[in-house]
Amino acid sequence: MEYETSFTPEDVEGLADVSHAPENLAAPVSSGSFHVEGMIVAPCSIKSLAMIANSINDNLLIRAADVTLKERRKLVLIVRETPLHLGHLRHMTSVTEMGGVILPPVPSFYHKPKTIRDIVDQTLGKALDQLGIRHQLFDRWAGG
Amino acid sequence: MEYETSFTPEDVEGLADVSHAPENLAAPVSSGSFHVEGMIVAPCSIKSLAMIANSINDNLLIRAADVTLKERRKLVLIVRETPLHLGHLRHMTSVTEMGGVILPPVPSFYHKPKTIRDIVDQTLGKALDQLGIRHQLFDRWAGG
Amino acid sequence: MEYETSFTPEDVEGLADVSHAPENLAAPVSSGSFHVEGMIVAPCSIKSLAMIANSINDNLLIRAADVTLKERRKLVLIVRETPLHLGHLRHMTSVTEMGGVILPPVPSFYHKPKTIRDIVDQTLGKALDQLGIRHQLFDRWAGG
Amino acid sequence: MEYETSFTPEDVEGLADVSHAPENLAAPVSSGSFHVEGMIVAPCSIKSLAMIANSINDNLLIRAADVTLKERRKLVLIVRETPLHLGHLRHMTSVTEMGGVILPPVPSFYHKPKTIRDIVDQTLGKALDQLGIRHQLFDRWAGG
Amino acid sequence: MEYETSFTPEDVEGLADVSHAPENLAAPVSSGSFHVEGMIVAPCSIKSLAMIANSINDNLLIRAADVTLKERRKLVLIVRETPLHLGHLRHMTSVTEMGGVILPPVPSFYHKPKTIRDIVDQTLGKALDQLGIRHQLFDRWAGG
Amino acid sequence: MEYETSFTPEDVEGLADVSHAPENLAAPVSSGSFHVEGMIVAPCSIKSLAMIANSINDNLLIRAADVTLKERRKLVLIVRETPLHLGHLRHMTSVTEMGGVILPPVPSFYHKPKTIRDIVDQTLGKALDQLGIRHQLFDRWAGG
Amino acid sequence: MEYETSFTPEDVEGLADVSHAPENLAAPVSSGSFHVEGMIVAPCSIKSLAMIANSINDNLLIRAADVTLKERRKLVLIVRETPLHLGHLRHMTSVTEMGGVILPPVPSFYHKPKTIRDIVDQTLGKALDQLGIRHQLFDRWAGG
Amino acid sequence: MEYETSFTPEDVEGLADVSHAPENLAAPVSSGSFHVEGMIVAPCSIKSLAMIANSINDNLLIRAADVTLKERRKLVLIVRETPLHLGHLRHMTSVTEMGGVILPPVPSFYHKPKTIRDIVDQTLGKALDQLGIRHQLFDRWAGG
Amino acid sequence: MEYETSFTPEDVEGLADVSHAPENLAAPVSSGSFHVEGMIVAPCSIKSLAMIANSINDNLLIRAADVTLKERRKLVLIVRETPLHLGHLRHMTSVTEMGGVILPPVPSFYHKPKTIRDIVDQTLGKALDQLGIRHQLFDRWAGG
Amino acid sequence: MEYETSFTPEDVEGLADVSHAPENLAAPVSSGSFHVEGMIVAPCSIKSLAMIANSINDNLLIRAADVTLKERRKLVLIVRETPLHLGHLRHMTSVTEMGGVILPPVPSFYHKPKTIRDIVDQTLGKALDQLGIRHQLFDRWAGG
Amino acid sequence: MEYETSFTPEDVEGLADVSHAPENLAAPVSSGSFHVEGMIVAPCSIKSLAMIANSINDNLLIRAADVTLKERRKLVLIVRETPLHLGHLRHMTSVTEMGGVILPPVPSFYHKPKTIRDIVDQTLGKALDQLGIRHQLFDRWAGG
Amino acid sequence: MEYETSFTPEDVEGLADVSHAPENLAAPVSSGSFHVEGMIVAPCSIKSLAMIANSINDNLLIRAADVTLKERRKLVLIVRETPLHLGHLRHMTSVTEMGGVILPPVPSFYHKPKTIRDIVDQTLGKALDQLGIRHQLFDRWAGG
Repeated sequence: MEYETSFTPEDVEGLADVSHAPENLAAPVSSGSFHVEGMIVAPCSIKSLAMIANSINDNLLIRAADVTLKERRKLVLIVRETPLHLGHLRHMTSVTEMGGVILPPVPSFYHKPKTIRDIVDQTLGKALDQLGIRHQLFDRWAGG
Repeated sequence: MEYETSFTPEDVEGLADVSHAPENLAAPVSSGSFHVEGMIVAPCSIKSLAMIANSINDNLLIRAADVTLKERRKLVLIVRETPLHLGHLRHMTSVTEMGGVILPPVPSFYHKPKTIRDIVDQTLGKALDQLGIRHQLFDRWAGG
Repeated sequence: MEYETSFTPEDVEGLADVSHAPENLAAPVSSGSFHVEGMIVAPCSIKSLAMIANSINDNLLIRAADVTLKERRKLVLIVRETPLHLGHLRHMTSVTEMGGVILPPVPSFYHKPKTIRDIVDQTLGKALDQLGIRHQLFDRWAGG
Repeated sequence: MEYETSFTPEDVEGLADVSHAPENLAAPVSSGSFHVEGMIVAPCSIKSLAMIANSINDNLLIRAADVTLKERRKLVLIVRETPLHLGHLRHMTSVTEMGGVILPPVPSFYHKPKTIRDIVDQTLGKALDQLGIRHQLFDRWAGG
Repeated sequence: MEYETSFTPEDVEGLADVSHAPENLAAPVSSGSFHVEGMIVAPCSIKSLAMIANSINDNLLIRAADVTLKERRKLVLIVRETPLHLGHLRHMTSVTEMGGVILPPVPSFYHKPKTIRDIVDQTLGKALDQLGIRHQLFDRWAGG
Repeated sequence: MEYETSFTPEDVEGLADVSHAPENLAAPVSSGSFHVEGMIVAPCSIKSLAMIANSINDNLLIRAADVTLKERRKLVLIVRETPLHLGHLRHMTSVTEMGGVILPPVPSFYHKPKTIRDIVDQTLGKALDQLGIRHQLFDRWAGG
Repeated sequence: MEYETSFTPEDVEGLADVSHAPENLAAPVSSGSFHVEGMIVAPCSIKSLAMIANSINDNLLIRAADVTLKERRKLVLIVRETPLHLGHLRHMTSVTEMGGVILPPVPSFYHKPKTIRDIVDQTLGKALDQLGIRHQLFDRWAGG
Repeated sequence: MEYETSFTPEDVEGLADVSHAPENLAAPVSSGSFHVEGMIVAPCSIKSLAMIANSINDNLLIRAADVTLKERRKLVLIVRETPLHLGHLRHMTSVTEMGGVILPPVPSFYHKPKTIRDIVDQTLGKALDQLGIRHQLFDRWAGG
Repeated sequence: MEYETSFTPEDVEGLADVSHAPENLAAPVSSGSFHVEGMIVAPCSIKSLAMIANSINDNLLIRAADVTLKERRKLVLIVRETPLHLGHLRHMTSVTEMGGVILPPVPSFYHKPKTIRDIVDQTLGKALDQLGIRHQLFDRWAGG
Repeated sequence: MEYETSFTPEDVEGLADVSHAPENLAAPVSSGSFHVEGMIVAPCSIKSLAMIANSINDNLLIRAADVTLKERRKLVLIVRETPLHLGHLRHMTSVTEMGGVILPPVPSFYHKPKTIRDIVDQTLGKALDQLGIRHQLFDRWAGG
Repeated sequence: MEYETSFTPEDVEGLADVSHAPENLAAPVSSGSFHVEGMIVAPCSIKSLAMIANSINDNLLIRAADVTLKERRKLVLIVRETPLHLGHLRHMTSVTEMGGVILPPVPSFYHKPKTIRDIVDQTLGKALDQLGIRHQLFDRWAGG
Repeated sequence: MEYETSFTPEDVEGLADVSHAPENLAAPVSSGSFHVEGMIVAPCSIKSLAMIANSINDNLLIRAADVTLKERRKLVLIVRETPLHLGHLRHMTSVTEMGGVILPPVPSFYHKPKTIRDIVDQTLGKALDQLGIRHQLFDRWAGG
């Protein structure tokens, strides 16, 4: 079966418990005093990576990521660009030095994926692993 | 259709015009005096990335990549690891500073891939683009 | 008496001799050829710090700060974030290396402040000191 | 009501479960083998910041902070100096790179503080947050 | 004859084969899969330099420049600011390290320019030289 | 009693719940998807330190350590070399920057060890402390 | 009217109050004990930039610039090269870090220059501004 | 006449308008709010240089120097050690980067000194020059 | 036999040809003009390491070590801390770059030590080796 | 046959199509506007390497090399010094970072050279390879 | 006479007083406790350079070189690669910083060599000079 | 008695066993093959320091110093400039990193000098100490 890539923003919003508009800099996640466990940016464009790496807190996404880093909570960026130039790598390095996790969505073939959804689930599973959230999106390796 | 991931090494070797054993450090590509246009490492494990970044020329793959860099020819590494730690990013940065191209195999969804093969072809096409080799592995973007 | 924190933007604008809209990039302070002694950003958010540190001259505030630095005039940033992550500190370091002064609004208890206004005045006084403007916002230390 | 800033050292000592003299380098917290969750230095002078950043373990405060860092426990420094010069920022950066948290006591006006005590409580609350200790020193942001 | 500096944006657009609005991030040049030889930014403000140096891909100009760098194509920035502060020079250095070319529009008097147009043509000619495009905008030096 | 240093590899293997051959790169710990709490390398030769610091994943030990770092789990290296040259210290620094812990097996005399086993137990205890595993290998310091 | 670029060295010398031969390393400006306000190098070739950046005090120009920097007086370099390579930018960065000002002679079109002399005057005026010398070489920006 | 080097501390104190004990950290110069033009440390031992470079504000001398730097006032250190090792030079570099002036007391023979006092006066004169204080401790160079 | 760890300071002093009090900064070893071959600090606490790495010459031990480095004589530090944090490793790196030798007292088991004294002698022997002093504290390796 | 090393400068000049005196800074190759493919410096002394690495454009050789780098053309330096100190290696690194190629004239024994001329031809051939000029100065490696 | 390049490994071994197999990591030179004056690696491939620079002690050659560096004995590497890329130069720089000597086998023509053996002897002589071993492999320069 | 500073170059040359003209780059000391113990540059101007730090081997002095460094012999520079700017300190740092010794001629008053000659002798003595040459130019410190 083909992978359904035509989710609309509304479809995604429908799956969320809470959603905030990017321009709403007064949302709860904009303050370090609001408790969250961590944050995943999926997918993370180079623009978002660059703004997070530099704290250009121009919208809620970037501000929330910046707060996540300053409060020493878990931040995971699923950066999807390729190829990468020196500037991209320096930003990834900076975010890593600040405590974030760079997790490019690269497929793992040893999991023997059959559909694009399998590949998407691999990446999601690895991101959830970083936050310590249990899942069954893929089989864990038990030895070759 | 499912993506066929069960190519054997023999299958791949059968597609090649020439193939050399990894331990054959006397193969032509081991010398800068032998002319080639460039080199693609696909996929490139962290071990290979690390050895190339450090010139640990222990087998033909690493030696050939090192020669490619010293002769200022094109080197493309399809690095497939995720997530990345600081050391991985420093190696990617070093290879980029030496003139190589880091090209992680991340899928592009704006191309609307339907199968894993579509995704594989995206990566291959981008790598061939780096060497200036014409191909039709994906449709080029003509505007949204 | 409680500190009055409900100044409206209009109240503040009413105190100014001249005011410019942030989007007015053609204002006089946008050019190095216009003479000013220096500039204080009070308060300075992380977003403004980050944009100044990187010369992302997207509005009049940032442009004017960038001009202040390139003309080697005094720039004082009252950065109010806490805690700080590595990226924040690197931006503060960069601005300092460019000649700016990072002046977080931290209270001095040896001045024995009694109200929030006393604390605000401490910070304002220290910022004016940097520009060599005389004031009587706090008593100067004359020995313990 | 004015903020009472005339606590004597004896007042503070009276609030503690245990207290050690600075010159007692044989106190339990001087060894990594003694279990503690973390450490807050409040306030932290530039002298203490500088000695911690450089491991100049000349008294119990600095030694305990150094042990906290080497055992990878949480260390929070409420650094109260302003303005900051390049050396101060480099020390803050070093401590951050070693795993510590720099938390200058800057007031948050969006919390609408009315007294100096409110401001002090903001800082204390943020420091306790870093150690994961529950408190009600300020209202958590729930959106604007 | 005086130099005509009153070109309107429409005049310039009239000279172009193709033009895209800055906000059109879906234009062909926004993707690495679209083939171009290179890109000249003329003139390049500090804001654009800073955003390119940091991959803040907020409009088509910056995105296209970022793609040019990641695909290892030629990027030329005619940066027109003066004087320069440390931050400006660090951005120029970063772009150069990523493979771009910083080409400030400084006049060459040994060409004995007589009008402002001569000076403009010098800069244009040097930029075209970087892309390997033949031109006759100035006489080439044949020895003194 | 003298310390028994003639354990054979078989003796050590007999104490393990599970053991893998170094050349078994398909063992479960070779994948980030397999859950473990952390990893101790005891003792850690300079060769292993160097390979871990550089991600030269040539055998299961190095690969497992690399996975531990990329998954942000605890990695403790009991590095036993002395004296150290600049390269050794740079590797230790790199591993520390990646999140690992360098723990040389140096004896603590304030514990008043009487046998070599006491000294070995000190080191083991400190390593277990890093993983948060309770033990009674030495008495905890309770003050001098 | 065309810009007269055929000034001879004698013409320029005629305009000076005092002039020294480049080889006269015993001239007053060669010593820090001689009082001057600052120094402008116009134009400044890459050779002079490089020698100043490295203190290669081989002639009076370079020695005087070096003294200006060591005495913490104002030094302005009108660097006229284009394009710039990495080495040029590193020298500009070094001079800036030592306290000098890099001021490339780039024309400002918002001043609506009509002749080459207007452009030359722009640069001279900006250099004089750095030394705090009043002039009327161009109109100051008063807002758009 | 021989140079009298047997000044007692009391002799020097007798020459001062005001003097403070090193342990008096509550003296006026300990606070940035007290106005002074600058500060000269003469002579400056390596210990003082090191403590100033690192803000180890353990006595009034170091604290006052640290305040001088944070308030961006002039600080001159007459460092008298020789030879210098790498650490000494790094401290001198740090102080210079923070805005201080390293002024080792090296004799100038082109001034044709005849006594040790002449040499001492050279150094004092150069230090006073840095603070803009007029003096006649040596003849200014007027050309060879 | 158990290792005797109850040496008193007096016992140690009794073994010395000459001994100086730490506060005696006028001792001969405080000057570079006094000839010595080198210096061993055994054991070397983190505090001493940090003070030597930063030239905080506050007592005779640190001053003598600093002189040893500036005179390019041999300095050996037997640093006994574990685990190490980033700051410790940076100090060790600095001392190494200045020419010192970091020699942690880690036991060598291939020497088959039987008592703690054997282990102490290993370390002492290696330190003496650095100074070129002949000894028979352990058997030299002659091949396996 | 012995290698003839007694070529006079006149002999070499006789082989050239065009030659310029080193002091002729007005020669065509002194300007970026003159088209050339690249430049080989054979042999390249440390003095020339150092001057090129630092843009000390004191003669035509250095100026032409500097222009080659700023125009992003190929520059090959056959550096003949041995052994190398840290400064030499830093210069080689800088030139490489600017885009130049360091090509020391080291013999290749796998080519089985018989005379010094064979060795000279190896180096020349490798330099010509860098410029993409065909030659038959040595046999290309075709595998061992 | 042609240079005889057909020495077999057995020929070379025949010339040695002692020889060890590369895989014999238990040979005496593998321990710092075995006394040697220094070590020459001739020739030194990029692979060996890289492994030594990184302490990848995988065989006796690398281990012995690493021990040589840690014991502060003389290490000379006759590195024979050309051209060099950035990674090679960084490795050479690292080894130099650790105290090793990079000595590429480049011929000196001012010695007027006539055969390849003369060239080989030049390199050998320079390497022996580094160890302070007297030889007569070439005539010493006595002035031109 | 006054210090006689009117030595002519001829006087100094008369004291030498051998002297070479600065332009004689073919003198024996210009080659590493000529044996010397070390080299003192007295006095060393900033120009010479800068040229040595950068290997600008333009005359015999600089070439001989560069050879001294590459052969790992002792090089002592008596640098006489004051005050120092950032560039001077970076050069001193570079020379130190290459193995040279920076020895500014600063007087030691604890030696109780009475004449300028005493001061000159102090510096000479310290420089000779660096080369291990015995002298009696000053009394060695024997304790206070």
